[in-house]
Amino acid sequence: MRFRLTPRDVTFFDLFAMNAQHLVDGADLLAQLIGAEPPDRPAHAARLREIEQDADDAKGTIMNRLNQTFVTPFDRDDIYTLAAAMDDCIDAMEAAGDIIVRYQIVDLPDGVVTMVATLQRAAELTAAAMPNLRTMTDLKPYWVEINRLESEANRTYRALLAHLFGSPQFQRSPADVVELIKLKDVVDVLEQASDAFERVGSVVQTIYVKET
Amino acid sequence: MRFRLTPRDVTFFDLFAMNAQHLVDGADLLAQLIGAEPPDRPAHAARLREIEQDADDAKGTIMNRLNQTFVTPFDRDDIYTLAAAMDDCIDAMEAAGDIIVRYQIVDLPDGVVTMVATLQRAAELTAAAMPNLRTMTDLKPYWVEINRLESEANRTYRALLAHLFGSPQFQRSPADVVELIKLKDVVDVLEQASDAFERVGSVVQTIYVKET
Amino acid sequence: MRFRLTPRDVTFFDLFAMNAQHLVDGADLLAQLIGAEPPDRPAHAARLREIEQDADDAKGTIMNRLNQTFVTPFDRDDIYTLAAAMDDCIDAMEAAGDIIVRYQIVDLPDGVVTMVATLQRAAELTAAAMPNLRTMTDLKPYWVEINRLESEANRTYRALLAHLFGSPQFQRSPADVVELIKLKDVVDVLEQASDAFERVGSVVQTIYVKET
Repeated sequence: MRFRLTPRDVTFFDLFAMNAQHLVDGADLLAQLIGAEPPDRPAHAARLREIEQDADDAKGTIMNRLNQTFVTPFDRDDIYTLAAAMDDCIDAMEAAGDIIVRYQIVDLPDGVVTMVATLQRAAELTAAAMPNLRTMTDLKPYWVEINRLESEANRTYRALLAHLFGSPQFQRSPADVVELIKLKDVVDVLEQASDAFERVGSVVQTIYVKET
Repeated sequence: MRFRLTPRDVTFFDLFAMNAQHLVDGADLLAQLIGAEPPDRPAHAARLREIEQDADDAKGTIMNRLNQTFVTPFDRDDIYTLAAAMDDCIDAMEAAGDIIVRYQIVDLPDGVVTMVATLQRAAELTAAAMPNLRTMTDLKPYWVEINRLESEANRTYRALLAHLFGSPQFQRSPADVVELIKLKDVVDVLEQASDAFERVGSVVQTIYVKET
Repeated sequence: MRFRLTPRDVTFFDLFAMNAQHLVDGADLLAQLIGAEPPDRPAHAARLREIEQDADDAKGTIMNRLNQTFVTPFDRDDIYTLAAAMDDCIDAMEAAGDIIVRYQIVDLPDGVVTMVATLQRAAELTAAAMPNLRTMTDLKPYWVEINRLESEANRTYRALLAHLFGSPQFQRSPADVVELIKLKDVVDVLEQASDAFERVGSVVQTIYVKET
């Protein structure tokens, strides 16, 4: 089935491209937050929260538009699922920043930096792919790479947990174990962000499969 | 697309309204359980389990009816997704009660009481909204408020975890850390219940967007 | 709505039946891994990873076929959801094996053996049910039994966690608590595998409800 391109429909592509930019901004802010000195992190977390709220508003605009539009470029369910998956990405990244600040985590292991760098790459790829929904071209390399990045992030995630669990540093005192649990929470939520980016790729693949 | 209202279809609204009542009963029982003295909690957990099974039966009835009905009020997938999301709500609330009893948790922090009160409010809103699916009126205030409640529950959840992680009470001995892990399990499952209520609101929004 | 049976469509059933065999193989390997001496486990984990990659390839084949096929036996979304749910089963089983090896867990409690045996049974039932999608017969006993197995696995899971949390063995030293956290990670991922098998059953039920 070919999809139709009408002036009214075009806005969906624009809205998704704009929303993907929030993911890029969110991932970049999260990278800055973890690279910052602990006293400077709350300010970054506050800005990350604003971006998450902007992304929420963008999702609301997409839903309202969907409500008013009779002819949409794709299946309505897919638009909804895509918006929801993008929401999960920014929610998890915001949660990671908020947790680091609230739990007053000072030292972040290198694996966290690596995982956030992978999220930045996933966000950039997603933002670059969104405009291609208009023409349904060049999308396969995107979801293939997003899948690869998720596998890479998953390996980093497991190696990082194995490292934390095996490190004598977190087994010396009860307080050390609490520190380990806090770090595990951070890396778990980063892994969830990575999974959410993979789901965005999956929805794009589903849309592609149906529309071409 | 307008939906049709036939005597046969009407039962879906009734079934969802009945099922939502199980959520209200479940949330109320969970509130009683956490307010009860520890020796009285197993009896509440057993009743919560019965409600969860009643809700399972109600879901089964919806699925059987769906199987026998050629004309349904909405998209079949949405009916299924709505039933599944409501199931997740009661499952998580039952799990919370069961965990508190099984792990023999005695002291529950105030944040747990707050989270359960939010679940009670979410259940009441959901039960009040279900009959409105018949007329597709007054639904937006419901999903807006459910979203707001979920954000509120999420803030309570994070503040509660930060409080637990920062409290010297859980860092004195290895047994204290185990107590912390047990409490984290309870608040995690309460957060899952809150997420499930938000998903119910999302499905209602999706149905609304399609049907109006 | 009756579904059509054309030579081209038949391959979907074959592909799902083949993919379900990967689940059987994966569950069997996981059972061997946990029954093996710790030094022999990495070899089993490596083979489990290969099976997970074979299952990934099988999913890719299903998606490509879906992309090339105009008339599919069922709703395209359901094929996609079924493939994704099967993927979640093998991913969680692979993760369990990998975690046991990476975290260098030596002693696994009996409940883990029970949970993996339930996964083996779920995988066998799933593999036996897939060919029945062709005729849409004898499917209800499958999803009923899968649901029952999931409830059973869930009871084992909660009892196992209660046992671990209550055991003095994990409260003696900070290192003991870390061992507890590692074991909790294993049983959590086994519970996720069980949930994923239940979702496979749910999708089959959804397909059945629509097609018959």
